[in-house]
Amino acid sequence: MPDPESSRERIIEVAADLFLKQGYGATGIAQILDATGILRGSLYYHFPTKEDLLIATLEWRKKMMWPEVMQPVFDRLDDPIERVFGILDGYRQLLLMFEFQLGCPIGNLALELGESHGRVRELLAENFENWKRAVRTCLQEAAARIPPEVRSDDLAHFVLTVMEGAVMLARTYRTIDCYDRAVNSLRDYFERLSAAATDWNRPVAKRRK
Amino acid sequence: MPDPESSRERIIEVAADLFLKQGYGATGIAQILDATGILRGSLYYHFPTKEDLLIATLEWRKKMMWPEVMQPVFDRLDDPIERVFGILDGYRQLLLMFEFQLGCPIGNLALELGESHGRVRELLAENFENWKRAVRTCLQEAAARIPPEVRSDDLAHFVLTVMEGAVMLARTYRTIDCYDRAVNSLRDYFERLSAAATDWNRPVAKRRK
Repeated sequence: MPDPESSRERIIEVAADLFLKQGYGATGIAQILDATGILRGSLYYHFPTKEDLLIATLEWRKKMMWPEVMQPVFDRLDDPIERVFGILDGYRQLLLMFEFQLGCPIGNLALELGESHGRVRELLAENFENWKRAVRTCLQEAAARIPPEVRSDDLAHFVLTVMEGAVMLARTYRTIDCYDRAVNSLRDYFERLSAAATDWNRPVAKRRK
Repeated sequence: MPDPESSRERIIEVAADLFLKQGYGATGIAQILDATGILRGSLYYHFPTKEDLLIATLEWRKKMMWPEVMQPVFDRLDDPIERVFGILDGYRQLLLMFEFQLGCPIGNLALELGESHGRVRELLAENFENWKRAVRTCLQEAAARIPPEVRSDDLAHFVLTVMEGAVMLARTYRTIDCYDRAVNSLRDYFERLSAAATDWNRPVAKRRK
């Protein structure tokens, strides 16, 4: 008899992949059974409803964000600002590798399930929060290159905003240029922040509310 | 007998509204018939397939963008940069008025129909292009407040990117603060651009590729 835990993991991974590729609504239970080779009873044993399975995939994404999205970038790059742009480069690679068919797993579900309730929306937000936390850590490390009136939390939120918008536009236009132009503008903003932070002659702006 | 042109218009407006509120996939033909009170035969006469209807709603959105999204802002505000932020404020009002249930009509469909082909994707892109064109016109008018190395087309693209990302995050978190923080960061970028453009002592940066 197969190990129940490994069946559970396998269902989650397959479902997460299908939700990413096709969306949540368009993915049927039958398709998940086909793709996993797991019996219907076993699926319902682990996940009584399709929403339970969605919740499990979002918890899994949350757990995998550090090892899959962040860690490889942090291992490869040392400079904290370059790490932020390295994370953005990961989504660029995803767009190119899957020819614009895949975007950000969380962003896609966020728009599809904008109307959903309770735990699903909480988990989408928790995934976003974890992402921002990693970026914020980099920005705090690079504090000397960011003017003190710019809060690292706001800036991390802005980086996420730009990434999600840029992924959406690149997928619509099917061109990486859409993604690159947005990231270049963000880079220009970072360069201007850095210039302001290191220019001792410029007056310090008031902190924005 | 009702005027066929007015039936056609009515179907388009009702369908556009339902696609915005529920998504394209979740909207059934029966629901459109119910909401319009139009006979099935008449619907099929105008739109042989659901995709034909989707295409007509996207053409309608394209036509309505100027009078509905841009014109009221341009009438109310004179300053070109304030017009850009006035357009962004329109989406803020939409989020608040419909309690985060509605986002950007085009952005929503763009993510839902990322996989769609031909004319649908073209029309999504044309809607985005029209939006950017209006913003770019403002930026060109405000050229004295933007350093020459920053291209107005890139900056308009960046404004759209930020708007789409901010709408997505505000809808996920169900808080306008998410939207406002992103727009504030964009505002900070514009202020830094303006400071650089009007500071004659600073060296001009090289134009980014």
